[in-house]
Amino acid sequence: MTARIPVAVLGATGSVGQRFVSLLAAHPWFELVAMTASDRSAGKRYGDVVEWVLETPLPSAAARMVVQQTEPVLGLPLVFSALDAAVAGEAETAFAAAGAVVVSNARSHRMDRDVPLVVPEVNPDHVELARRQTFSRGAILTNPNCSTIGLVLALKPLADAFGLRRVAVTTLQALSGAGLPGVPSMRAVDNVVPFIGGEEDKLEREPLKILGRLGPDGVEPAAIAISAQCTRVAVLDGHTECVSVETVEPVDPAAATAAWRAWASEPQRLGLPSAPRPVVVVTEAADRPQPRLDRSAGGGMAVTVGRVRPCPVLGLKFVTLSHNTVRGAAGGSILLAELAVARGVVPGVEKP
Amino acid sequence: MTARIPVAVLGATGSVGQRFVSLLAAHPWFELVAMTASDRSAGKRYGDVVEWVLETPLPSAAARMVVQQTEPVLGLPLVFSALDAAVAGEAETAFAAAGAVVVSNARSHRMDRDVPLVVPEVNPDHVELARRQTFSRGAILTNPNCSTIGLVLALKPLADAFGLRRVAVTTLQALSGAGLPGVPSMRAVDNVVPFIGGEEDKLEREPLKILGRLGPDGVEPAAIAISAQCTRVAVLDGHTECVSVETVEPVDPAAATAAWRAWASEPQRLGLPSAPRPVVVVTEAADRPQPRLDRSAGGGMAVTVGRVRPCPVLGLKFVTLSHNTVRGAAGGSILLAELAVARGVVPGVEKP
Amino acid sequence: MTARIPVAVLGATGSVGQRFVSLLAAHPWFELVAMTASDRSAGKRYGDVVEWVLETPLPSAAARMVVQQTEPVLGLPLVFSALDAAVAGEAETAFAAAGAVVVSNARSHRMDRDVPLVVPEVNPDHVELARRQTFSRGAILTNPNCSTIGLVLALKPLADAFGLRRVAVTTLQALSGAGLPGVPSMRAVDNVVPFIGGEEDKLEREPLKILGRLGPDGVEPAAIAISAQCTRVAVLDGHTECVSVETVEPVDPAAATAAWRAWASEPQRLGLPSAPRPVVVVTEAADRPQPRLDRSAGGGMAVTVGRVRPCPVLGLKFVTLSHNTVRGAAGGSILLAELAVARGVVPGVEKP
Amino acid sequence: MTARIPVAVLGATGSVGQRFVSLLAAHPWFELVAMTASDRSAGKRYGDVVEWVLETPLPSAAARMVVQQTEPVLGLPLVFSALDAAVAGEAETAFAAAGAVVVSNARSHRMDRDVPLVVPEVNPDHVELARRQTFSRGAILTNPNCSTIGLVLALKPLADAFGLRRVAVTTLQALSGAGLPGVPSMRAVDNVVPFIGGEEDKLEREPLKILGRLGPDGVEPAAIAISAQCTRVAVLDGHTECVSVETVEPVDPAAATAAWRAWASEPQRLGLPSAPRPVVVVTEAADRPQPRLDRSAGGGMAVTVGRVRPCPVLGLKFVTLSHNTVRGAAGGSILLAELAVARGVVPGVEKP
Repeated sequence: MTARIPVAVLGATGSVGQRFVSLLAAHPWFELVAMTASDRSAGKRYGDVVEWVLETPLPSAAARMVVQQTEPVLGLPLVFSALDAAVAGEAETAFAAAGAVVVSNARSHRMDRDVPLVVPEVNPDHVELARRQTFSRGAILTNPNCSTIGLVLALKPLADAFGLRRVAVTTLQALSGAGLPGVPSMRAVDNVVPFIGGEEDKLEREPLKILGRLGPDGVEPAAIAISAQCTRVAVLDGHTECVSVETVEPVDPAAATAAWRAWASEPQRLGLPSAPRPVVVVTEAADRPQPRLDRSAGGGMAVTVGRVRPCPVLGLKFVTLSHNTVRGAAGGSILLAELAVARGVVPGVEKP
Repeated sequence: MTARIPVAVLGATGSVGQRFVSLLAAHPWFELVAMTASDRSAGKRYGDVVEWVLETPLPSAAARMVVQQTEPVLGLPLVFSALDAAVAGEAETAFAAAGAVVVSNARSHRMDRDVPLVVPEVNPDHVELARRQTFSRGAILTNPNCSTIGLVLALKPLADAFGLRRVAVTTLQALSGAGLPGVPSMRAVDNVVPFIGGEEDKLEREPLKILGRLGPDGVEPAAIAISAQCTRVAVLDGHTECVSVETVEPVDPAAATAAWRAWASEPQRLGLPSAPRPVVVVTEAADRPQPRLDRSAGGGMAVTVGRVRPCPVLGLKFVTLSHNTVRGAAGGSILLAELAVARGVVPGVEKP
Repeated sequence: MTARIPVAVLGATGSVGQRFVSLLAAHPWFELVAMTASDRSAGKRYGDVVEWVLETPLPSAAARMVVQQTEPVLGLPLVFSALDAAVAGEAETAFAAAGAVVVSNARSHRMDRDVPLVVPEVNPDHVELARRQTFSRGAILTNPNCSTIGLVLALKPLADAFGLRRVAVTTLQALSGAGLPGVPSMRAVDNVVPFIGGEEDKLEREPLKILGRLGPDGVEPAAIAISAQCTRVAVLDGHTECVSVETVEPVDPAAATAAWRAWASEPQRLGLPSAPRPVVVVTEAADRPQPRLDRSAGGGMAVTVGRVRPCPVLGLKFVTLSHNTVRGAAGGSILLAELAVARGVVPGVEKP
Repeated sequence: MTARIPVAVLGATGSVGQRFVSLLAAHPWFELVAMTASDRSAGKRYGDVVEWVLETPLPSAAARMVVQQTEPVLGLPLVFSALDAAVAGEAETAFAAAGAVVVSNARSHRMDRDVPLVVPEVNPDHVELARRQTFSRGAILTNPNCSTIGLVLALKPLADAFGLRRVAVTTLQALSGAGLPGVPSMRAVDNVVPFIGGEEDKLEREPLKILGRLGPDGVEPAAIAISAQCTRVAVLDGHTECVSVETVEPVDPAAATAAWRAWASEPQRLGLPSAPRPVVVVTEAADRPQPRLDRSAGGGMAVTVGRVRPCPVLGLKFVTLSHNTVRGAAGGSILLAELAVARGVVPGVEKP
């Protein structure tokens, strides 16, 4: 255990921060040694300031940890950022300037030219972009938006096998994605809110960078048209996405299913600890995937695809589901950090 | 009040049957004089057998009414059918053969060649099809599926103004649409079920008949491609539908909004008692329509359209919401009966 | 309509304020002519600043009204206060000092010696306390806490007929009682919160004043021991309360039911517009009252009592349900204002 | 693993049956080798007939198992019964007559004179009653009702330390307790159902047997008066109970807390695999226990007590929470079986 890599979580009290704390408690490579939050919480014990919302109990070691201000004095090689976008941009840059590799869940740097936006199974090679950054030792790597991750994990095997032209997606997103305090209960019970600020724009743009090609001037975005409609439903965790795709080569449900089932990628080949096997669970049950029943597939790191059938408008349609605060946030960032370590992108840190 | 037209409700104990009973209690033209249900309930007082689920109280006159078997001995000119599809086909035919005009909410006869499938504002002229039926006095008229109604009410003004080529729709449907006992609560809380048996097929086919043209051989279906993905969410009433459309002529959000706002049709011109004004409420609020806030627009008979914006894949996208057991079922059938009376299709009955 | 009494609502944008606006829109005696809210909203149209949460639509006249600052320059004889307790104390005093009769839903002045705490059917005579206040023209009258109202409406007929010694009550309270933004949805879905700040104290103390006797030194509290356990459940409107009582004289379910059913009080005798008939609806259905089905009884102004049965510990037990933002807040205050007008406690205002 | 004791689950497809299957999948002592269900399912693979509702995935070995008819031909020393009460009585007797020790979750035999009704930490010695049964080798042991278990685990340390006279309890019970299909979603969303058939009677009677004394004529029930009000709320798992108690000796919150915290019993001393440590988790957080956050304490086998405070009516009040399908059903039965094995009550089977 002495060989574990010390890490910190920035913004540890929010809903994604809590998930980081929970997942890192038993991580084989990383050891949570520090956490930061707003000035209001700094100097207090985590257990006394966090409004814990996870069903799994607050780890007792984390509960006793004293929360620090979000300032880059930590001297750690690797930090995870669950900061709000409002403060993430500057804070992450400051940590990187101070020598840390920052793996961020915030949107602030995602579209920066030299910042990799990575889903480890989809575009592991994009991690190399981090080497072009001009910090002396540090770097910033980013995890996409939660709804983007579920989508691109389902799209990538189709893109590889058949080529993609157009994608229409309607999401039914979980409440935990709105953070804390998040959606008021008077808006959630017996209701749907058909709007999530900024979400459709992210879901229409981020996949193009992720599915794009790494070139000399950064990532050349994929030439795919995406249309997104994003809604919020009364689900605690797990984003459901109803997807229709138009492919370059003909596709049918059987061929798509075969492509998904055959898919394994670099994280699986490298045996990264958070890499699910399989990446995509294809279900043939008539009424699945369902958030409550399928969000924990692969420890929350797999996506579940179901209802694969022809689409009279675009060609193929299906439903994909992923855990928005595990695979779609903290778990996805941890897998990305594992990949970065394995590829030697974190200076001075070796794969345990 | 003595001049009101006596009517019956077939299948009065189910969730749609209850809505019929509730809406007819204060109807200016129709007077509920009889109701039927399964043999198990026949002979008992309605108030003693119904598992009432509506927030509005069970009308006391209806509570005292004795439930009859579903047999065509009533001698009434007009009956509403809220029967299960399993029994509706034969029973409705029997009532029509016995001289009644049956306005049905069941799917059994919807696609029959001589049976009108009508949304009164969309295709009021299709009511005339009923005259081609071969019953001596009776006839069958049908109301579409609940998710179809919300969709075609939003599509019709676009079809008229711009022409329609392709439509992709994802629905988030209410629990009341599944009837009683319907969806188990263990499937509804903290969950989405991305499947409703038969629903996608109905939503892809029924609009073509409704938007079609009445010809010598029945209705010639509209030449539109529709793709539907149907999900069930934890909402009591109100179907939300996320729609993208490709039009023949160019369309933008402002032009679409103008078309919706300008729309009134025959039910409004005839002053039918259940006709909403406006038919389509267009909202500019960023996060509407929402089921709990908008399902009661126009007494549950209007549809609310919002989030009108360009679609990068098909051209235009928006969200439409309608009350599935009012406009989408009982209320829609009552408006259809009003139209049939006004057009003289119910023998021996005149508009009050 | 010219004869209607002009009134204002203080704190009109919160969840109780919205209910006032909704109920006053069609009130036969009162006309809403002004509304106030925080400085942030002042000067803007109500429709542009309110986050409407009611299923009934925002009345269009109210939507166009310009919100004012909460300052006593209105010159109105009667104002309703839906202010937060944090500001209600001072603001209500200022309005009363400026000559207005303030009917308040806030807790700030409820236990003041000369301030009546009134449920109109229970202690209508307490309204007279207002005449002892030392304002030149104005006065403050208060409405109890929402959970108190449902309880005392059920207790009063028992207290009159059998005498009360001890009461144990566990509440299952609705989300709307927490105001806006209120309970986060992550705390409401698939959950119960067994704590509501300050609620148990109010529920153990307020009924003693309401059921007390008006004496020369204010109200002499009733000699009853009450124990309350208050919980929050995933219900939008309607507080359910499970009650056990120990009476002075013997009581059984039939006698209690007869007492509830026979009960009518001054508001009913005076024909006040918001007075429900009956006050207490006793249901014999095995599984009622239920919030969704019974909260609207009597237009939301009645309470529904059910499951009346012997209690092995205290003697009699039952379940009572009332609408927390209608009878328990805005509607209760409006009925109180009607009573005050009818009793001549509002200077210069006569019963229309 | 060859040393594990082979067991069967009767009624494996219901919600409690599923929990048995899930908990037994990784049990260190017991190996699930057979399962039964209704004739409709017999002969089919479990994975093909079960409507799985647990968030944890269906274990793959169980999914492949062929379901048998519920007939005592299994020849197993130990079987778990999750049968419906409608069939449990006869079926369990038949299995016991055929030589099996049946650990049952059904109510059928709970109050039989020679049948132990056991919560292992509360009345472990009652297991010995099984030896008085007249089967040649088999026996029947029973687990109480789910709401009873949460209550008596909280009451036992108080009964031991202070003596108990009277108990008033109001429950807020989870949907999973109603089995499948259980409560219709139209009754669960935005609602409370203040009635659960037979539940109050069980909760008022079963604790008296469990807290009673084993005598020559069976169990002499404890002399405690219990009053229960049972409600169903929109929670998936976890029963919340609001309790007030009157003790023989004086008690205050600190003394009660000390008694709960000090408590360990035979299952803990024996190191039984499913025994939680501590048995009672006492929380000092103002707003806990909450079902979603606390139901999994001790792997779902602990109870969480909070809000300990004086009760103005009975003396002491608190809130207790337990997982109704783990501790309150399948997990409780498994712990009971472990106890029975450890005490040598299962013929031919030794503690591994």
